[in-house]
Amino acid sequence: MAKRSVLTPQADDFPRWYQDVLEKAQLADNGPVRGTMVIRPYGYSIWERMQAEVDLRIKACGAENAYFPLFIPESYLKREAEHVEGFSPELAVVTVAGGKELAEPVVVRPTSETVIGEFMAKWTQSYRDLPLLLNQWANVVRWELRPRLFLRTSEFLWQEGHTAHATREEAQAYTVRILHEVYEDFMVNVLALPVVVGLKTARERFAGATNTFTCEAMMGDGKALQMGTSHELGQNFARAFGIEFLDETGAQQTAWTTSWGVSTRMVGGLIMGHGDDDGLRVPPLLAPTQVVVLAVRDEGDVIARCREVADDLRAAGVRVQLDDRAEVSLGRRATDWELKGIPVRIELGPRDLAEGNATLVRRIVSESADGADRKAPVALAGIVDAVTTELAAQQDLLLAQSLARREARTADVTSIQDAREAAATGFARIPWDVVGPQGELELAGGAVTVRCLQRADGSLPEHDGEPGLVAYVARSY
Amino acid sequence: MAKRSVLTPQADDFPRWYQDVLEKAQLADNGPVRGTMVIRPYGYSIWERMQAEVDLRIKACGAENAYFPLFIPESYLKREAEHVEGFSPELAVVTVAGGKELAEPVVVRPTSETVIGEFMAKWTQSYRDLPLLLNQWANVVRWELRPRLFLRTSEFLWQEGHTAHATREEAQAYTVRILHEVYEDFMVNVLALPVVVGLKTARERFAGATNTFTCEAMMGDGKALQMGTSHELGQNFARAFGIEFLDETGAQQTAWTTSWGVSTRMVGGLIMGHGDDDGLRVPPLLAPTQVVVLAVRDEGDVIARCREVADDLRAAGVRVQLDDRAEVSLGRRATDWELKGIPVRIELGPRDLAEGNATLVRRIVSESADGADRKAPVALAGIVDAVTTELAAQQDLLLAQSLARREARTADVTSIQDAREAAATGFARIPWDVVGPQGELELAGGAVTVRCLQRADGSLPEHDGEPGLVAYVARSY
Repeated sequence: MAKRSVLTPQADDFPRWYQDVLEKAQLADNGPVRGTMVIRPYGYSIWERMQAEVDLRIKACGAENAYFPLFIPESYLKREAEHVEGFSPELAVVTVAGGKELAEPVVVRPTSETVIGEFMAKWTQSYRDLPLLLNQWANVVRWELRPRLFLRTSEFLWQEGHTAHATREEAQAYTVRILHEVYEDFMVNVLALPVVVGLKTARERFAGATNTFTCEAMMGDGKALQMGTSHELGQNFARAFGIEFLDETGAQQTAWTTSWGVSTRMVGGLIMGHGDDDGLRVPPLLAPTQVVVLAVRDEGDVIARCREVADDLRAAGVRVQLDDRAEVSLGRRATDWELKGIPVRIELGPRDLAEGNATLVRRIVSESADGADRKAPVALAGIVDAVTTELAAQQDLLLAQSLARREARTADVTSIQDAREAAATGFARIPWDVVGPQGELELAGGAVTVRCLQRADGSLPEHDGEPGLVAYVARSY
Repeated sequence: MAKRSVLTPQADDFPRWYQDVLEKAQLADNGPVRGTMVIRPYGYSIWERMQAEVDLRIKACGAENAYFPLFIPESYLKREAEHVEGFSPELAVVTVAGGKELAEPVVVRPTSETVIGEFMAKWTQSYRDLPLLLNQWANVVRWELRPRLFLRTSEFLWQEGHTAHATREEAQAYTVRILHEVYEDFMVNVLALPVVVGLKTARERFAGATNTFTCEAMMGDGKALQMGTSHELGQNFARAFGIEFLDETGAQQTAWTTSWGVSTRMVGGLIMGHGDDDGLRVPPLLAPTQVVVLAVRDEGDVIARCREVADDLRAAGVRVQLDDRAEVSLGRRATDWELKGIPVRIELGPRDLAEGNATLVRRIVSESADGADRKAPVALAGIVDAVTTELAAQQDLLLAQSLARREARTADVTSIQDAREAAATGFARIPWDVVGPQGELELAGGAVTVRCLQRADGSLPEHDGEPGLVAYVARSY
């Protein structure tokens, strides 16, 4: 297996493996300004698919897309005390524009709560204007001292939803609806990452929120990655920006707001959550290219038949790419497509054609079969059915593998010491009463954090003061 | 017609009418930082449809989407002399980030030629790597002293394509291909704006380009709007950034690059190109909502039947919205939908139902019929066919009306004086030999510019030195 040498093996050096994948699969490069990122076409096509799937779910929850300015007056950030404290160290500030020093410096948005709060106040007069459900796809900037591509970059791409409601109950319900129906559903059923969904502790909460809910995924090295968050903002921003309305009785009321977001960080989660020593493994439902039809040689009608197969698959709704670069060796092309994690490869050569067959190569294989199920001949006559069945099977298999790994590497413990040990290789589940803010601080000293809190039955707490909560504890990105 | 009073009539004050439409149709607001813009959900849904249609055409031309950083080192801009000179007065500069003064200030991208040039150089080794066809959807910043929403804002949204080719001929051919197959095709066949396509004069050329091609549309007041441009950059950026490759003979060569873009300015073009005293008129192929099904009253099964009609239309691929707000007066709702320019309104009340009919109301009507064809009863049984036929007819009618207006308001003239007079109400077509750089300067004194140059047969010149060219001259936004 000469191709193994393309990437540093995960077991040798996981962070190095990650860097290798980014480069060899042509996903991203470092930008010229510290901490910024160039997303290359293949990386961006993955992000576009994520956007499409998330956007569909956001719209199904009734939110509408809009766009708010990149530049925010410095004074806006100062109106919500915790918010400005949380973001001040990370801000990029424009002081010169149009050839002149600005009278009031403007901040490049680290998030848009403040400017959207200002406009929500303008657009909200009566209870009839609520709920106001907005979403924005945009770039944001948070200056990073220890950047890592896709995981922590000074500029990243994301969606940020912002909503205003008439009551606390409605705001809370919408926060949780987005968490489950948009984020968890997308991550589990499209990304095939079985996320742990829970409540953040006060220490890990978003700056200015009353409650932060999160989706946490386990990466290949056992660390946690925060994949998305949904915040109840209470009336903090509504009070700061005057988001008020006349209720049905004609009384002036203050609204309740929420915000929620996922970002290009999910691309990092995809890579580290599913990747192996051969490269990426992309779940079929997400994959920009689900199938590559590969002409083994340019001989007879091989390329023409490959094109036919690709057209048939495309007509059946499969996202397919043709690889007819017969001048490049088969081995090198196979290695490249495996690096990129394309779920299914259909290889077609003169011998296959003579037998009325093609060779189907799987990227996602059952570990127990030890690779024996990697390749299989399929009849050309039934190739569309064979491929669509295979794609569905790989989607299920990948989710099952991720879930099995998470379960195998999650330990139930009852002491801080045991939690720290378990976190060396995976997640620890521990009663929150045992940890508490003091234990949390202690764990943080060893770079271990409380990722989230759940009730004993796995459901979401309403706040972190509920008795009997369980904490998920881990190292994290 | 009491609803007329909602907007300032175009004939009274066109710029005021434009501002009124932006506000009343809830398209956009001014942002808090001078020159920035908030794009409201309805405005943004129009932009999303534009993006989808343009993106489809860009991908059909073989370009792939990618993402490059917002922040560019100041030194990058200085490498191409004309480029830095062109953009310096408009730059926004970040001098403080992460709580510290930056050693080298970073510029917020006014366009990405320079940073993309840097990476093209990195990714281009051999002729096999060419052509390199990239596109980016992003926000850019050019500080505006006289901002106007959608037309000139300090921050705007756009796509910018950047390509590198092995030969001048290929670069030239691709510049023109994008101009015709992406921009002109979209503008004429989707936006229903019959643009004049031509070459910019040296004076109006993009900073750093050797040739700039443009699509110019006529607005309702006879002024021109530059809707999109495609640039041949020659080897200027390739030399500045070292975009070089080994050709088939093994010799080192410098690449030829192009760039091309359209922006949220097109939303302004849509408003001013098609709007009337009742508001927007959105071409059916673009419209985020093509049909509103409106329940006249909440009586009997009116709302249920409206929902059925909407479902049937949706199933036929029509973009439809249900308006069952029976508590709001019919007149007010009708006015609102007309303001938003929804092509077809289906009104359904108890009387219509009793007769097995609905009332179809057209937003785009033939001017000659004097509004007599505005409303018509249609049988509920055949409503899907009636609506799809109507949508196609309105698309054609809108394009025909735009074309007729442009022709009526374009004058063939032979003197600068006559050109200036014709430009008071529309376009003037005049031999370029009569104008020349000197006449251009003279016209500019009266706020009239040469919009573009064409050959006598309407085709594209290769450069502005060709004999016998015709200049389109107009006032412009």
